[in-house]
Amino acid sequence: MSDPLLFLEDLRPGQTFVTGTHTVTEGEIFDFARDFDPQPFHLDDTAARATLFKGLAGSGWHTAALTMRLMVSSGPPLAGGILGVGGEISWSAPMRPGDTLRVHSEVLEVTPSRSRPERGMATIRNETRNQRGDVVQTFVARVIVPRRTRSST
Amino acid sequence: MSDPLLFLEDLRPGQTFVTGTHTVTEGEIFDFARDFDPQPFHLDDTAARATLFKGLAGSGWHTAALTMRLMVSSGPPLAGGILGVGGEISWSAPMRPGDTLRVHSEVLEVTPSRSRPERGMATIRNETRNQRGDVVQTFVARVIVPRRTRSST
Repeated sequence: MSDPLLFLEDLRPGQTFVTGTHTVTEGEIFDFARDFDPQPFHLDDTAARATLFKGLAGSGWHTAALTMRLMVSSGPPLAGGILGVGGEISWSAPMRPGDTLRVHSEVLEVTPSRSRPERGMATIRNETRNQRGDVVQTFVARVIVPRRTRSST
Repeated sequence: MSDPLLFLEDLRPGQTFVTGTHTVTEGEIFDFARDFDPQPFHLDDTAARATLFKGLAGSGWHTAALTMRLMVSSGPPLAGGILGVGGEISWSAPMRPGDTLRVHSEVLEVTPSRSRPERGMATIRNETRNQRGDVVQTFVARVIVPRRTRSST
């Protein structure tokens, strides 16, 4: 059973969505860091203790990538998929091995395109929280969402 | 031979840096998409032709991760590493299989911390360009940079 697809007309400021969870392992943190962000605080717990992180922490881009996976698998079922053009990202707490992540989303703004009658833009605030409720990442995303057309109603 | 490490005092608005390159393969695009962003336009060229991308395109988070790898391996040699707290990201052109990426960075702003004498914040604009010079991603990053201390001069 899947949720019905959401078009631009189905989105309203204040609407919220919550994804499933993903528990990140130390091995995943190492694998991602080796591939994309090979810095000591993402690869070595002892070296990480001497840094701002005060212990092994996942790359912020790993948090972003895991957030995307949660959004794609269990986020808002946007018609056309999760199609971001950009946004403001911030990392406010380290992602630690064993952390269980969940994404809480809220629609902030819905804007039909002036030039493109078939679509519009939604601004969605996505908070990635750990098992204690700490926000590890906030991404205020601008996403392209199709409008409902005669053939899809 | 490695460049001398850069502290906050070594950064000036207008300074620029250019990384080495990375050529992204179709296999890398599929691997990343399967792990983190399993949507048809990142996994299947035929399906992608019917979308806004008009052909297979890498995940924006894959572009971000590859940008980070280029920054870590051959970006500005910041003392303390590349330690971002967030920023504004945008994807302005698709990343295609076979694209050769290079990151062009410019320091926009340098701000010593008022409360932390040992560090400050730099705002750095990072453009990820392909082999034709098209900007595929812009990330205006806020990074923490250590200040030069008596023991490190």
